[in-house]
Amino acid sequence: MHIPKDFSMAPALRRRRQQLAKLIDFPVILWSGRSCSRNFPANTYPFRASSHFLYFAGLPIENAAIRLEAGKLELFMDDAPTDSALWHGEMPKRDEIAAVIGADAAFPMTELPSRANDAGTIAVQNMATQQQQSQVLNRPIFPANSPEGIDLELTKAIISLRLTHDDAALAELRQAGVVTVEAHKAGMRATQTAKIEAGVRSAMESHIISQNMGCSYSSIVTVCGEVLHNDQYHHPLQPGDLMLADVGAETTLGWAADVTRTWPVSGKFSPTQRDIYDIVLAAHDACIEKIRPGVDYRHIHLLACQIIAQGLVDLGILRGSAEYLVEMDVHALFFPHGIGHLLGLDVHDMEDLGDLAGYEEDRVRSHRFGLGYLRLNRLLSAGMLVTIEPGFYQVPAILNDPTLRSKHQNLVNWDKLEKFADVRGIRIEDDVLVTQKGTEILTAALPNKAEEVEDLIGAN
Amino acid sequence: MHIPKDFSMAPALRRRRQQLAKLIDFPVILWSGRSCSRNFPANTYPFRASSHFLYFAGLPIENAAIRLEAGKLELFMDDAPTDSALWHGEMPKRDEIAAVIGADAAFPMTELPSRANDAGTIAVQNMATQQQQSQVLNRPIFPANSPEGIDLELTKAIISLRLTHDDAALAELRQAGVVTVEAHKAGMRATQTAKIEAGVRSAMESHIISQNMGCSYSSIVTVCGEVLHNDQYHHPLQPGDLMLADVGAETTLGWAADVTRTWPVSGKFSPTQRDIYDIVLAAHDACIEKIRPGVDYRHIHLLACQIIAQGLVDLGILRGSAEYLVEMDVHALFFPHGIGHLLGLDVHDMEDLGDLAGYEEDRVRSHRFGLGYLRLNRLLSAGMLVTIEPGFYQVPAILNDPTLRSKHQNLVNWDKLEKFADVRGIRIEDDVLVTQKGTEILTAALPNKAEEVEDLIGAN
Repeated sequence: MHIPKDFSMAPALRRRRQQLAKLIDFPVILWSGRSCSRNFPANTYPFRASSHFLYFAGLPIENAAIRLEAGKLELFMDDAPTDSALWHGEMPKRDEIAAVIGADAAFPMTELPSRANDAGTIAVQNMATQQQQSQVLNRPIFPANSPEGIDLELTKAIISLRLTHDDAALAELRQAGVVTVEAHKAGMRATQTAKIEAGVRSAMESHIISQNMGCSYSSIVTVCGEVLHNDQYHHPLQPGDLMLADVGAETTLGWAADVTRTWPVSGKFSPTQRDIYDIVLAAHDACIEKIRPGVDYRHIHLLACQIIAQGLVDLGILRGSAEYLVEMDVHALFFPHGIGHLLGLDVHDMEDLGDLAGYEEDRVRSHRFGLGYLRLNRLLSAGMLVTIEPGFYQVPAILNDPTLRSKHQNLVNWDKLEKFADVRGIRIEDDVLVTQKGTEILTAALPNKAEEVEDLIGAN
Repeated sequence: MHIPKDFSMAPALRRRRQQLAKLIDFPVILWSGRSCSRNFPANTYPFRASSHFLYFAGLPIENAAIRLEAGKLELFMDDAPTDSALWHGEMPKRDEIAAVIGADAAFPMTELPSRANDAGTIAVQNMATQQQQSQVLNRPIFPANSPEGIDLELTKAIISLRLTHDDAALAELRQAGVVTVEAHKAGMRATQTAKIEAGVRSAMESHIISQNMGCSYSSIVTVCGEVLHNDQYHHPLQPGDLMLADVGAETTLGWAADVTRTWPVSGKFSPTQRDIYDIVLAAHDACIEKIRPGVDYRHIHLLACQIIAQGLVDLGILRGSAEYLVEMDVHALFFPHGIGHLLGLDVHDMEDLGDLAGYEEDRVRSHRFGLGYLRLNRLLSAGMLVTIEPGFYQVPAILNDPTLRSKHQNLVNWDKLEKFADVRGIRIEDDVLVTQKGTEILTAALPNKAEEVEDLIGAN
């Protein structure tokens, strides 16, 4: 890790821990984690610090911990051994890092156990660090255990802070957005020459890497858009295909973007592709239009379902009123996932805490097919960043399901649907900040109207 | 995971397990491992199967195990649950995978404990899987424990097989080499327009991604070549800088390449840079020239030390005979690492086994500064793939070390050395297959002569 020259987060970090101190009255220890070995110990995956650590410490320091109490921050980390300078160069020292992030004190790791009394924590993802957390705090700290006692209190306090973003966070999130927009443009431009999906992925990730960032999640770049979490890139591009790309950058300090576009490999949507694309875009636009503080995100989801259902009725694919179709979950045959999620340090922000962040305290996941995959179910407030990502997919596992098919036999015009066989999957996703006045789309610079997307591919 | 259309490794896999059966007379269970969570459970690092599993199973199947006995292979894995097809599409089924890799039988994971009696194993890197290994075999299986008993027997048997590569392995390794060569050419070509190191890295990794491969290790792409394991890419490129790029591709089946080139950012080496470059290249060429079956790799290392020492004497940087300088480890002030290592499924092949693979049974790491970092210390035999990677570095942590400096005060012309300040780090690395007749350089298509490298950058 190096300290970015322009690192200026210290005042924001101080405000965050002062806010935390207003919510809880016990000390907190947050660990950053360690890197995971890939195939042998020295060959590790790129280190990703725990997001809760990053939120208060600012920098991705490996194998470190911070102790927060009454608005003060103590940094615990070990300086690199002398001979590591041979292999890794001079690393920033503990005292230097402490000064940059505005720590009130700094100690070697061996001091941590003596300062751990009565401290709350949150389990990190790295298993070796979980063992350290459990040892230092003398109780089992594992992500599979729901937090209890002070850990639960801490979790709720951190959620209440991280739910809305301060200016320092927004500066990072905007940067991630800018780079992600350019990555998508690069992907569109590369489509005409790429032979397989990997060629488009390469153009997109190449831009992210060139900006010294990484990806905030495994890129989805596929002509099989109906496979929602596709992590394969070997399919050839055919002129009639739609390319679905869900790719986002992560800044060096860990803040994420998450954007999806869908475009025609040939540069021109077929009439059937265009019909469905415009429905998905209408749902996207209408949802963003409705977002403002106080609005229930669940209603935004249902609005998207409604617009998609109505669009499919207008095309003759569905039969009945949009209200009834959504009530019956018929829309979910084609739009099975939720309209979006929180975005911040994590691409699904705070999903390490299960539904504690995504769901209001009195809400639980629905058992309905059309609602159960909703990741965010809260009233919106200014400073929240959410994705809006409606979609249309023809998933064989859904459409060929005998139960679903017979249940909805008369509500779907299956013959009509067959004419839309060239629409395997479409998703349009942007990153939307809830503001006092309504919204600011952080990724608005990336075109999403069908003609504009066609223009970018340059095949008109 | 998908099964590549052209997967044709089954006969080789069968031969490998038949060879293993000649070496040991007990059953073996090898686990593939699981993916590691990054910042929340659903956001994982790309899965990398354990190399020992890959060697016998061929495909990177997540959360699987194979049982080998008397030349037979049993595959243990669970088919994806029905509803996962919604998110991940149709995954290859156990029986399909079993057929493709030539398994003799296939079972769900629940059957594994009942087939685990008296089986040997090797610890994987993933900690969750280590716990499963320990449970199923009812003894602690952790990489930090040196293998004992049948596990040690198994380890030695697998090493003896993996030390030399069969045709199926070589086909993969050649592919990795071809893609790596093109990645380096792309990096050289991108140097003139790149503003920071990340721009060059982007061009290199972009080519690897476009070929649907990944990197076999974290790329080193730096103008600070003296930092041996540099993983930062933010430095600006200055006309007088040397760019050192150590980047290698890994095929989808897990086989690695590992190549380094060093080139002038301006497109033209300075006279001092050129002088040192030619010494490193001379060492590189002389080492490869000497490689053949029966040769001691330790002598290859010492040959490189000798040539580098002699070259530095000729330039007036060192004083004395090359033999004496190498005996005194003076060469190691500038070439502190080993001449190379094994290459195969792992970029440092089988380094998960410590020095068991790299060192002959009766050899141990030297305490000498100039020999202690040698990763391979064996007699070479046909079919081994090794890297040859001599280098020259001005590492402040070494050259400013008071002990080393005073020890070698009179053997180094420090004033002369100052004239070479624009040479921070140079390394030239190729992947060299030991053949019956001598060698085949798998990465020979990538130029390494100074003029050819300058030509590629296109600034002459």
